[in-house]
Amino acid sequence: MTQNIYDDDAFLQGYCQLPRSVHGLDGAPEWPSMRALLPPIDGLSVVDLGCGFGWFSRWAATAGASRILSLDISRNMLAHARAQTSSAAIEYEIADLETLDLPDRAFDLAYSSLAFHYVADFGRLARTVHRSLKPGGSLVFSIEHPINTAPSTPGWRKDGDGRAIWPLDGYFREGLRRNHWFVDGVEKYHRTLGTTFSALTGAGFDIDHLEEWRPSAAQIAAHPEWEQELDRPMFLLMRAKRSA
Amino acid sequence: MTQNIYDDDAFLQGYCQLPRSVHGLDGAPEWPSMRALLPPIDGLSVVDLGCGFGWFSRWAATAGASRILSLDISRNMLAHARAQTSSAAIEYEIADLETLDLPDRAFDLAYSSLAFHYVADFGRLARTVHRSLKPGGSLVFSIEHPINTAPSTPGWRKDGDGRAIWPLDGYFREGLRRNHWFVDGVEKYHRTLGTTFSALTGAGFDIDHLEEWRPSAAQIAAHPEWEQELDRPMFLLMRAKRSA
Repeated sequence: MTQNIYDDDAFLQGYCQLPRSVHGLDGAPEWPSMRALLPPIDGLSVVDLGCGFGWFSRWAATAGASRILSLDISRNMLAHARAQTSSAAIEYEIADLETLDLPDRAFDLAYSSLAFHYVADFGRLARTVHRSLKPGGSLVFSIEHPINTAPSTPGWRKDGDGRAIWPLDGYFREGLRRNHWFVDGVEKYHRTLGTTFSALTGAGFDIDHLEEWRPSAAQIAAHPEWEQELDRPMFLLMRAKRSA
Repeated sequence: MTQNIYDDDAFLQGYCQLPRSVHGLDGAPEWPSMRALLPPIDGLSVVDLGCGFGWFSRWAATAGASRILSLDISRNMLAHARAQTSSAAIEYEIADLETLDLPDRAFDLAYSSLAFHYVADFGRLARTVHRSLKPGGSLVFSIEHPINTAPSTPGWRKDGDGRAIWPLDGYFREGLRRNHWFVDGVEKYHRTLGTTFSALTGAGFDIDHLEEWRPSAAQIAAHPEWEQELDRPMFLLMRAKRSA
């Protein structure tokens, strides 16, 4: 079973301070890039895999999605999401992406923001999502970039000349990483980009977009400290289609 | 025009000592992975982009390719390649991948080993190669992995705990890198993986394979020093298809 760190009080207290928790999609710097990958939402049946506080699900309801199944492992987050929602199109359910079942050919769009790196068996999940899409449907998702999840001891270092470097090691040593993020022992799974790609193609997907998110010049002007993010890819965004 | 470092005597003297120069395909640890991406070669029309000493072209001739156009910028390497070849199926030509022209819909397979990172304008090259393929044809290529080309000062470091780390920086600062490789000032072009992917999809390709080469357990047993290559991806292998 996936670690449910989002129901840990100390973790959630920290996570709630993040701009993306306070401001929703507008507080997530990669959202404009994610939105650009989406089909027109009006009338679509959507599954939101790891919906968290439900910001995307509510956006999709407002944009005219006919049905949104919003899944998360965290009772606290789902309770908060429900309390914010009046749309009858959204259905919230507790679910563990590790053991997820979904109905066959039910959705036009599967969406997931920064959740798949909590899953140990991504191959199983990719096959489950592929089966759940209608032919022509697509999966749009973001994950932490594997360069970000690989290191045995993540965190910026100073090189001999004073430049900041990202201390890459262990790239091909896939599997569990336990690191400090608000609390000790937050569990994520490192997979190479090649492994993620092959899991998707192996499930039958065609991958038509792969993007390494970087802050725009406007975003760096507004947040000068984000210039550091030009040194190392932080998020990986992909779109995969079910053709038949 | 692409820097022609392979016609620099001091560089070529160093390069000629590499296992892949001495032993050909069997001296290239990624060759088994590249070969696995190839279609059956018998009867195919092939273009070899950056053929070097011509090892792959000769292999393709032996495997039954009907025609092989073998292109390289280096007169020295082409002269060596010609001297090793008796096959009438192979045609050698001097060419700069930066300004390459190819006939339309002429080839079933475009192949390139570790050459595209010398090219500044990969978008132009991707479009040129796409046009030159017959519908259904494929491009199989390897490049240095962008994690390998990104750093401003490449080379392993020791972290505080004595572990080797790869000092990543400048990932999103694309463009020319000048580094020491046998001689000073060898020019390569750094592009993010996302940029390479988008250049290919933008040219009309469908990408059905993306692989980050790693040494196998058997290769590490034979070359224990290659275990270091598990810490950082060195080569990127891709296959892209022209569907129509």
